[in-house]
Amino acid sequence: MIEQEEVSPLTLNRLSFYLRCLRHLQELGIKRISSQEMAQRYHLSATQIRKDLAQFGEFGIRGVGYDVNALADHLNSLLGLDRQHAMVIVGMGNLGSALAQYLGFNYGAFHVVAGVDNDPKKIGRRVASFVVRAAADLQDVVRESGAEIGVLAVPAEAAQENYDALAEAGIKGVLNFAPVRLKRRPGVPLKNVDLRINLEELAFFLR
Amino acid sequence: MIEQEEVSPLTLNRLSFYLRCLRHLQELGIKRISSQEMAQRYHLSATQIRKDLAQFGEFGIRGVGYDVNALADHLNSLLGLDRQHAMVIVGMGNLGSALAQYLGFNYGAFHVVAGVDNDPKKIGRRVASFVVRAAADLQDVVRESGAEIGVLAVPAEAAQENYDALAEAGIKGVLNFAPVRLKRRPGVPLKNVDLRINLEELAFFLR
Repeated sequence: MIEQEEVSPLTLNRLSFYLRCLRHLQELGIKRISSQEMAQRYHLSATQIRKDLAQFGEFGIRGVGYDVNALADHLNSLLGLDRQHAMVIVGMGNLGSALAQYLGFNYGAFHVVAGVDNDPKKIGRRVASFVVRAAADLQDVVRESGAEIGVLAVPAEAAQENYDALAEAGIKGVLNFAPVRLKRRPGVPLKNVDLRINLEELAFFLR
Repeated sequence: MIEQEEVSPLTLNRLSFYLRCLRHLQELGIKRISSQEMAQRYHLSATQIRKDLAQFGEFGIRGVGYDVNALADHLNSLLGLDRQHAMVIVGMGNLGSALAQYLGFNYGAFHVVAGVDNDPKKIGRRVASFVVRAAADLQDVVRESGAEIGVLAVPAEAAQENYDALAEAGIKGVLNFAPVRLKRRPGVPLKNVDLRINLEELAFFLR
């Protein structure tokens, strides 16, 4: 087993993608799949699949392939998706409100339980399953809601101070939608979401 | 050179990530970098970098490394980012409105030029640099605005019909934010954005 720190963001991205493929195979009722078949079906590299999975244990049987359900369960637990993660959204403008209602953010392991803003017009408003609280009360909101993950949906210029505030409130990880590079704190992993990367992939096909 | 169809989504994702790393190196004023240094700095695999880039030509010089500016320019053009891409957003709710104002969607090669909705309360409203038009007029909106990329920010149940409408309106590629699998049309590439994948990567560090 390798240490968490040694896993690259691209490997994690691939593991998450493999899990998605496996869930698709489950929907199709497929019980076993070889790395070759999986690679072909989802345009991946069979060598890469075997190498990535071998980092975390022995899953496949040569000539037989992977047990789809067992591998899906294993990746699910490896990615920490076998338990609930409560989230607080900082910044309840259009993006924050959209994320609060986004199915992917309220399904399976993830649930938005709270949202804060510093705009008095937004505070007290009901969004999805919660009432927007004051950003100044972030510490209390995190403690009362049990939120572990903070989602930054604030303008770029407000992102650093809010990341720091989340770290001080005891948040364990931050997902940042603000298009800005933040100074990280040790022990508070930060994942930047850059929606542009999706456009760049699409643009390739429009050349 | 390999054909567009042969490039896997994960390779494109990596190329886009490499470009991001190179832009960061440019900000730092670094002119040359070896695949090893780049791998170390950004937690990547040097072998993978060399293999990915070798698919598209000869960039590195053994023992000298890559010319950061030249490689960034090349990836930029390879990804089709050296020309403008106009986008139309379908669904001007919270998510569509947020995307219309999202910096990453209005920077460099990408610009949101139009938005449509079928809600009379939203039609005619000014958002960012445009006025929301009726979804029924999509064909006209696409022709008049010159939009090439369609962004689906509609509920899951409305995604397929709107993807089809975009295809019929002559859109060349679609970015889908609706959490649903769509039936693709030939010639209209579709990229699904799954925001959950980012949460899954973060959850790994919270185990």
